[in-house]
Amino acid sequence: MSPQTEAADGQVVALTGGIGGAKLCLGLQRILPPGALRVIVNTGDDFEHLGLAICPDLDTTLYTLAGLANAQLGWGRNEETWTFLRVLESLGGPTWFRLGDADLALHVERTRRLRAGETLTSVTSDLSRRLGVCSEIMPMSDQPVRTMVDTTDGELAFQEYFVRRRCEPAVIGLRFCGADHAQVAEAAAQACRAPSLRAILIAPSNPYLSIDPALAIPGMREALRAGGVPVIAVTPIVAGTAVKGPTAKIMRELGLSPSPLTVCEHYRGLIDGFVLDERDARLAAAMDLPVRLCDTLMQTIEDRERVARCALELAADLA
Amino acid sequence: MSPQTEAADGQVVALTGGIGGAKLCLGLQRILPPGALRVIVNTGDDFEHLGLAICPDLDTTLYTLAGLANAQLGWGRNEETWTFLRVLESLGGPTWFRLGDADLALHVERTRRLRAGETLTSVTSDLSRRLGVCSEIMPMSDQPVRTMVDTTDGELAFQEYFVRRRCEPAVIGLRFCGADHAQVAEAAAQACRAPSLRAILIAPSNPYLSIDPALAIPGMREALRAGGVPVIAVTPIVAGTAVKGPTAKIMRELGLSPSPLTVCEHYRGLIDGFVLDERDARLAAAMDLPVRLCDTLMQTIEDRERVARCALELAADLA
Repeated sequence: MSPQTEAADGQVVALTGGIGGAKLCLGLQRILPPGALRVIVNTGDDFEHLGLAICPDLDTTLYTLAGLANAQLGWGRNEETWTFLRVLESLGGPTWFRLGDADLALHVERTRRLRAGETLTSVTSDLSRRLGVCSEIMPMSDQPVRTMVDTTDGELAFQEYFVRRRCEPAVIGLRFCGADHAQVAEAAAQACRAPSLRAILIAPSNPYLSIDPALAIPGMREALRAGGVPVIAVTPIVAGTAVKGPTAKIMRELGLSPSPLTVCEHYRGLIDGFVLDERDARLAAAMDLPVRLCDTLMQTIEDRERVARCALELAADLA
Repeated sequence: MSPQTEAADGQVVALTGGIGGAKLCLGLQRILPPGALRVIVNTGDDFEHLGLAICPDLDTTLYTLAGLANAQLGWGRNEETWTFLRVLESLGGPTWFRLGDADLALHVERTRRLRAGETLTSVTSDLSRRLGVCSEIMPMSDQPVRTMVDTTDGELAFQEYFVRRRCEPAVIGLRFCGADHAQVAEAAAQACRAPSLRAILIAPSNPYLSIDPALAIPGMREALRAGGVPVIAVTPIVAGTAVKGPTAKIMRELGLSPSPLTVCEHYRGLIDGFVLDERDARLAAAMDLPVRLCDTLMQTIEDRERVARCALELAADLA
């Protein structure tokens, strides 16, 4: 069966965090039939800033799948202007979180609708549709979960750590505040048990910062296994380092070896297969589950499609 | 005594609404020594929109006195961009209230500080200073007062009437929701009893929409009279019509003759003198208080200074 034919069958769920995960999702969206991709997104990074409900990973996913991501910056929206932030600075307001004028509209409108009583699932679905996204983007939960980073400088809210402090303080531990009392969003749970589902992919996002917040929600692991389809993780670690972001740094700070083996072990009991980078081929023999080798660096659109196809092929092999 | 010498003595308080009043305030600021002008601003137009605390008259005053008013539009800020509103529209958000990207920063920062527990007086004072305004701009009250317009289409919140419906529905009555329980802001009351105060001016704003909300606050009339200085009103009606805005239309709808005599009568017991437009000179004899004639149209900067000087001269005559 060719990859093209495979791609035409059934739905795929991806569990993802921010930029790296969004690249895989874009690859998936491009090779799957329209509407076949359901993306469950980390909301542990969400925070309130300037009175606005900001959801960085949902927005990265949304902008990426809508073709609106800012390629120059690597984050935020394209065709952006910065008048708001410039004036906010002149007024003495907090400018460490860089909010563009276009990006701001999304935060303001989402906040307005949340305050009016809508769920984050509902608002996200509608805004995605309005921006022309054919995939379904959904938060992991409609209740707040907040990733708190315990560091050598004390405990920091995620964005304080990630943006304001640029991941500089060493990480001692992580806490997903609210996760105990959060529920898996109904749309996310439904996506995982759809009869036509054929694979669940765990994107190459930071396992500790971006995937663990979802896994900390009671019932999320069970929901991911409920459909009985193969669950495949794509490695976020290539040749001992992270492609982007602080994954390897955090792993070392937590006393973990920054190796795909560590990530694979971290997902034990959850995943059925692992997409390993071909640069780490020698590690395949040490893994006790099915592995597929792939060049997992995603610089071009074709790279994103290649990694997506590789993960789906592994899932098809295991189905 | 020449106007220049007069202008060097003591402080002046202006009670004002929006655009027309801000023109007089700019004239006053230009002829008075720096810091001598205290502006008490209507907040009956304030409303919450998109979760933001928006204060249109405070902002008009602030932008005008900071030299940041948008001369092309006649409202809002100069050097404005509109990315936010364009994107908000694409997201299906409400765009009837035109928020520019620069203007938005003021609303967001003010809202943030109000939510953190600051008073509107404190936030306004600090933001004015940051924008380089040498005069003191202060709200009439730190408690919410909301102008509700009873119309032939039912009762409308002020901005619904003024912006969304463009003042089209006929006005039956006005109500200043919250005024009964509001207090005159302490800074405003202090400004009115400053020992060096020499005049209080009522700007040529709409008496019913922009000045009455302040006068409806218990103690405001007494506060304006407390310093024992002349209180002077500048006519908002010239030759039977309003220079700008719906004043004359509303007066007719309320069964009032759109004449300076009606305005003068409306302020009876509060004012000691009246600046009448020279086009209405024939009405001076019908007024039972001191009147000074002036060309009150304020198109140029010199016009604004002339009207300001005329009002101060009348106050000096009555001191």
